[in-house]
Amino acid sequence: MSERYEDSYLYRLRHSAAHLMAQAVQELHPQVKLSIGPPIENGFYYDIEFAEPIHEEDLTAIEKRMKELSKLDQRIQRMEVTREEAKQLILDSTIPGMGAETSEYKLQLLEAIPEDQVISFYDQQRTDREGTLHRFLDLCRGPHVDSTKEVKNFKLMSIAGAYWRGNVNNKQLTRIYGTAFETPEELEHYLHLLEEAKRRDHRVLGKELGLFMFSPRVGTGLPLWLPKGATLRHVMTDFLQQEQLKRGYQPVVTPHIASIKLYEKSGHIINYRDKMFPFMEDEDGDKDTYILKPMNCPFHIEIYSSQMRSYRELPVRYAEFGTVHRYEQSGEVTGILRARGFTQDDAHLFVTPDQLQSEFIGVVDLMQTVLNKLGLTEFRVRVGTKDPSSDKYVGHDDNWTAATNAITEACDKLGLDYEVSPGDAAFYGPKLDLIIKDALGREWQMGTVQVDYNLPERFELEYIGEDSKPHRPIMIHRAPFGSLERMIGLLTEQYAGAFPLWLAPTQISILPIADRHFEKAEEIASELRSRLFDTRPLRVNVDDRRETLGKKIREAQLQKVPFMLILGDRGLEENTVGVRSREDGDLGEMRLSDFLEKLV
Amino acid sequence: MSERYEDSYLYRLRHSAAHLMAQAVQELHPQVKLSIGPPIENGFYYDIEFAEPIHEEDLTAIEKRMKELSKLDQRIQRMEVTREEAKQLILDSTIPGMGAETSEYKLQLLEAIPEDQVISFYDQQRTDREGTLHRFLDLCRGPHVDSTKEVKNFKLMSIAGAYWRGNVNNKQLTRIYGTAFETPEELEHYLHLLEEAKRRDHRVLGKELGLFMFSPRVGTGLPLWLPKGATLRHVMTDFLQQEQLKRGYQPVVTPHIASIKLYEKSGHIINYRDKMFPFMEDEDGDKDTYILKPMNCPFHIEIYSSQMRSYRELPVRYAEFGTVHRYEQSGEVTGILRARGFTQDDAHLFVTPDQLQSEFIGVVDLMQTVLNKLGLTEFRVRVGTKDPSSDKYVGHDDNWTAATNAITEACDKLGLDYEVSPGDAAFYGPKLDLIIKDALGREWQMGTVQVDYNLPERFELEYIGEDSKPHRPIMIHRAPFGSLERMIGLLTEQYAGAFPLWLAPTQISILPIADRHFEKAEEIASELRSRLFDTRPLRVNVDDRRETLGKKIREAQLQKVPFMLILGDRGLEENTVGVRSREDGDLGEMRLSDFLEKLV
Repeated sequence: MSERYEDSYLYRLRHSAAHLMAQAVQELHPQVKLSIGPPIENGFYYDIEFAEPIHEEDLTAIEKRMKELSKLDQRIQRMEVTREEAKQLILDSTIPGMGAETSEYKLQLLEAIPEDQVISFYDQQRTDREGTLHRFLDLCRGPHVDSTKEVKNFKLMSIAGAYWRGNVNNKQLTRIYGTAFETPEELEHYLHLLEEAKRRDHRVLGKELGLFMFSPRVGTGLPLWLPKGATLRHVMTDFLQQEQLKRGYQPVVTPHIASIKLYEKSGHIINYRDKMFPFMEDEDGDKDTYILKPMNCPFHIEIYSSQMRSYRELPVRYAEFGTVHRYEQSGEVTGILRARGFTQDDAHLFVTPDQLQSEFIGVVDLMQTVLNKLGLTEFRVRVGTKDPSSDKYVGHDDNWTAATNAITEACDKLGLDYEVSPGDAAFYGPKLDLIIKDALGREWQMGTVQVDYNLPERFELEYIGEDSKPHRPIMIHRAPFGSLERMIGLLTEQYAGAFPLWLAPTQISILPIADRHFEKAEEIASELRSRLFDTRPLRVNVDDRRETLGKKIREAQLQKVPFMLILGDRGLEENTVGVRSREDGDLGEMRLSDFLEKLV
Repeated sequence: MSERYEDSYLYRLRHSAAHLMAQAVQELHPQVKLSIGPPIENGFYYDIEFAEPIHEEDLTAIEKRMKELSKLDQRIQRMEVTREEAKQLILDSTIPGMGAETSEYKLQLLEAIPEDQVISFYDQQRTDREGTLHRFLDLCRGPHVDSTKEVKNFKLMSIAGAYWRGNVNNKQLTRIYGTAFETPEELEHYLHLLEEAKRRDHRVLGKELGLFMFSPRVGTGLPLWLPKGATLRHVMTDFLQQEQLKRGYQPVVTPHIASIKLYEKSGHIINYRDKMFPFMEDEDGDKDTYILKPMNCPFHIEIYSSQMRSYRELPVRYAEFGTVHRYEQSGEVTGILRARGFTQDDAHLFVTPDQLQSEFIGVVDLMQTVLNKLGLTEFRVRVGTKDPSSDKYVGHDDNWTAATNAITEACDKLGLDYEVSPGDAAFYGPKLDLIIKDALGREWQMGTVQVDYNLPERFELEYIGEDSKPHRPIMIHRAPFGSLERMIGLLTEQYAGAFPLWLAPTQISILPIADRHFEKAEEIASELRSRLFDTRPLRVNVDDRRETLGKKIREAQLQKVPFMLILGDRGLEENTVGVRSREDGDLGEMRLSDFLEKLV
């Protein structure tokens, strides 16, 4: 078991960095009113009321002052006091930052401390060359490091607004975010990752590469896929569909809406209503109320149960690229990573108890195949189980136990390391999640497999067994990508937009140098488009604009096209093309057939 | 100009057939109250109040009596009378069917005749051997044929309920449908077509062939596509997508819902509201109101206008298999031919005025290619224009004129015969529809092309011309299939489920005779699945149930699988398969390679 962050030296260090920042701010802007300044996941912040607004540029001066204060090696000391003493200290205007005029938030904080809790201050003091005592005193539970000298490797990051106590009816304070590490290398690494993450931001790249867009007239979290993004989707779904057909899945296509009757039966109306879009109610018409589908499962169940099933038909595996809608809070929507409308690479397997383990293993194998193909080879496995203290789940305990055991036994059989996470189950059953580590070391929860005894019960699903009696099948829900949107978001960041050749929306860009090379360029494009690469025709474009070759190369490079074929007089004479690779630059003149050979 | 049906002999004949039927009914059930009995599109009906309910079986006796009455050669005579005389006749209980007790509907009909209109009866009389006069008298505007003898080739079809005057608050009468023709051959041909249409009914075949299903828990007009239907969809979209990529279309994918802001801007909220599903209104959340998209165009417009466009980029051709929802009256929903959720093979072309004609011609060429591929080679062209008396259209008259001219000029250039149909335009522009004639001679309105100057204006679309100034593009809307659902419905009926090889969901079924042939059957299936046919891998299944060969053949035949490969001991020894074709039956034993050669 690793140390909890809250118990670590790093946590104390960042807490002290927050105090150091507050001290610097207080010296530079004596009128400020301080409120709270905790350590957080990747650093710390302090919420402060300034007399005049400050800006990101002002952070440099604060940072500079922090560096000076750090070097002064101020001892950081804990003082435990009574409530009365605390009040006197807060109102003592002889101490910098204290006094009635600037202490309204501290007084409120003091009042909020429960009667039985120890009240403490942290005091950082120094005496200057003239012998004057300087101190910065802050009401704080701690703990902290021993001296400001230890707070060396820090950086102030940004400014944001934050309501006092998070309440929109209170005053808005200025929140300054910073980060701190134990070593300069760690700080630098973190800042580098941040830069990289920014450079790879799928929202920025999505726009630059022409993958998708949003429109306020369409709505929050509803992406419109541009030609290159639509192509990427097609390549991914085509690849997965081929894999699935090989493995005996059957495609189905179901509606985007249903009567609420369907979701009443499935239990979603009760258990999932807060994630559903507003209902479509018709008081005049046929009086049915419709909803946008938040999940595909009930539709696949309707198909399963539309005819009598024999054990010989099982396992039945229905696959659909099904678009679902979930009414995420608009503040939680993030590009295509968390959208309101997205397409799951969904499938539902209806299996006999005997088939459960082998089918589950088959699903995990498919997921591994998919992730390998996408180049996402680092992942960990989390088994999400029921939170025993919550009542949000449907179904009998027996079913939950059987389903959970089926998952963990299959994991054991596969030799997969996994961690059990109570409370991470779906409302109808436990699940296995794959948590992918990306090129920057960030984790993403992606593909999921769920074992479900409950929906078959709610819908009274049956198959006739070898004994000629009816039995209940078990369902497996699974989505290797998770959703197309989220997976494309991750892949965009993983590859910083430079998708592997098989995925790249445009694989080859032909750049004719002058008008007289256009015709031959189109010929070559046709020739290439008739070739299959990874089972699909090559995706080739011709840049037939009247621009300089330099500009054409720069743009193809910005568009992260894997290969450019430059066609000029020499190409026409010698029947060759100049090949440039996205990664390796100029590869020289070669015959088209040699290039094609190189490609495969 | 051909004669209008209402002016034809056939129309009079059917009208007289309705009277003849009423006479027969009146003789067999003297208590009936007659109401109205008009000729209709394919026959006639009469609405009658019976004292006791009658059933389809009873039609035989009525038909028999009609035949007898027909042979009696009753003269059908027109009598013009005053309103007072009419009333006396209706209340005259000495005339069969007349009198106060049975005449309530006739009296109401008489009252409804305007003052200035001539009132007439039609009287069919005969004198029997004993010299007694028989007559059947009916209040009727006519006209009729001269004698019941002419009504020879008829058949009673069915019974339905019908409210008096179509009002649900009135009494429900019994409607008897029948049909009549001039010659026995015509009648027989019509009945044959009806039988054929029934045999080909896509709703029945859709179920038998496992193409699609409906579920009351999902809702009216919302098909769930079963594995074979989903495969059919995939083959069709894949074929069209390949065609489109060759022709410079770019794929896009857009959301299924949008804020109403989008459809306010497009004009759909005002002009198309009655076809839209109820809105999704959120009073607590982000206060945006969402709607299911009834049309894809505004989304493609958002993509077009997301960046500045140069004339060099045009034409821009965005294609999407876009699922739309239209709130058809539940009574109008018919299987997948008229569904509430369906997928259009939609595309929008943004063109300069110079490009309009050539792009329009390109679209019509693509549509012809598509229909040829589908084997739908008989069609006529209808140009739908504005109804000058309606105000349901948006946009300036100039634009309507320009768009209409563009369509008719392109048709002239293509040498297409076309008929102009005022009132058949979309609300934003005129259109060209392809009306297909199917194997039974029935007509289906399928693919459509629209020229649109108005949406570009509403959305202020622009491109920068060669003159560096902004210009407005013109849009072309088009859908060669119309919708996947409707086209698959038509194709199912056209081919009575026996889809051409390239389309068939299962192309080859391998039938191993006994267990010991299963392994080889799977081997052959794998081999076949690795071969491309019409650019897609062959779709092969293995019937590995333990059933007799006879049963397996019968089922593959019922499933209309184009080829069966029968594998037994001989096949194992000689490395051959027994080939059966859906159309030609047993083709004998052959090597797999020879079969594959035959296939191509």
